[in-house]
Amino acid sequence: MRIDLLPTAESIVPAELAGCTAVVFDVLRATSTIVTALAHGCRRVVPVVDASGARELAGRLAGENTPVLLAGERGGQKIPGFPYGNSPLEYPPEVVGGKVLVLTTSNGTRALNGAAKEAHTVLVGSLLNARAVAQKACRLGRDITMVCAGTQGQFSLEDTLAAGMVVLEIVEMLDPGWLCSNHQPSSSLDLADFAVAALHLARTYRDNTRRAFDHSRHGRRLLNMGLAADLDWCASLNTFQVVPVVKKESSYLIIEKC
Amino acid sequence: MRIDLLPTAESIVPAELAGCTAVVFDVLRATSTIVTALAHGCRRVVPVVDASGARELAGRLAGENTPVLLAGERGGQKIPGFPYGNSPLEYPPEVVGGKVLVLTTSNGTRALNGAAKEAHTVLVGSLLNARAVAQKACRLGRDITMVCAGTQGQFSLEDTLAAGMVVLEIVEMLDPGWLCSNHQPSSSLDLADFAVAALHLARTYRDNTRRAFDHSRHGRRLLNMGLAADLDWCASLNTFQVVPVVKKESSYLIIEKC
Repeated sequence: MRIDLLPTAESIVPAELAGCTAVVFDVLRATSTIVTALAHGCRRVVPVVDASGARELAGRLAGENTPVLLAGERGGQKIPGFPYGNSPLEYPPEVVGGKVLVLTTSNGTRALNGAAKEAHTVLVGSLLNARAVAQKACRLGRDITMVCAGTQGQFSLEDTLAAGMVVLEIVEMLDPGWLCSNHQPSSSLDLADFAVAALHLARTYRDNTRRAFDHSRHGRRLLNMGLAADLDWCASLNTFQVVPVVKKESSYLIIEKC
Repeated sequence: MRIDLLPTAESIVPAELAGCTAVVFDVLRATSTIVTALAHGCRRVVPVVDASGARELAGRLAGENTPVLLAGERGGQKIPGFPYGNSPLEYPPEVVGGKVLVLTTSNGTRALNGAAKEAHTVLVGSLLNARAVAQKACRLGRDITMVCAGTQGQFSLEDTLAAGMVVLEIVEMLDPGWLCSNHQPSSSLDLADFAVAALHLARTYRDNTRRAFDHSRHGRRLLNMGLAADLDWCASLNTFQVVPVVKKESSYLIIEKC
């Protein structure tokens, strides 16, 4: 099993994902929000790349009497006129239970749509569900590509950390000797260089994931916007067992629990 | 002082390097070879992007009675017809002393040429001279971008490790508290997310840099080609005080000791 990592949504080459399991990360905050919403009873999430498309779809669903929440974020702020934003704290069970969440965000929805073009299966990862995602990805038995959304085309510490946490869980399940100093790499688990770097990042911050957000530009930016409670939530490791999976439905992607 | 990191030669946007100090890394093996050659008395290194240009320049220099060595590598192998390759072990003092080394390599010379377009100063980094480069870059007082050559457009563990070693040395010189768990990021040292990840990679492998080459695809490839002695040499940390600096001379770059 080969494990690779793409650092940004922009670095996705869809053909290179053909046949593999892709796991998409946008830890602050899109994928943490998706995981939280589904864990709290949300029926499905529909990620839409642009704001007007999200508004149109939510309007159509509402017209069909589907209970829907319209949520969107750009640059860390709620989109004007959108009732919901990109904070996982906006989606407790009593708000999101049984609803369809139509969501558009800066980087995460682009990464999801890019990954879904060719990958055999697309899962949604975060710190909140890292172990569950690792277990699911192993069971699928295919090569795995961790797709980090990144921030405005740049490498993001928090996305790579969460991807590394999934790599670390997989290594501990399939080849725990990998972490020993005298270990010879096995042919059964082939880690690309970027996956190795992410794994070490995960080991560094495993006991204090929240600290990584202080070391991340986007984390500090959200902190300065008064979103410390969001950061605390998104830093929580292996809180949920939910593994969101992305499916294609007509012209939209939908995300549901496995 | 802002510290950033570019993972591959392909990710260089010359205008973004304007006014800054760039440090170029191609640890296996171009920049390790350049550092070794200059430490061993080489007069200057001329990095040339293509093989025919290297051959032509070496011929011209030889015609001018300049003592010159023609060296080239593609895909880890010596270029057919080139008397020297890309192994630092080919350049002991008795071979390289007083000579001009004309060198073309797969990734390193491209990164050097890319960085030299706009950066104020370009230094050549490796594990062999990480501390000396960090000291020099700090003295220059400008923002610093670590430019990793990468391997065929891909992230390379060993280049990022060496870049991280320079970041780690700088942090220990300028803001040692950064590494403490309760440290508040200072405004004097602004690390981009990629520089933070590289720093942690350096801390992971600091006591066993050679081990990182076993975890790197390119390292394993060279090992399979019988180049273990090269890997041992390139893994040696802070062996040399030499800091190569890149200058422009007519249509060529030249690299000399500071």
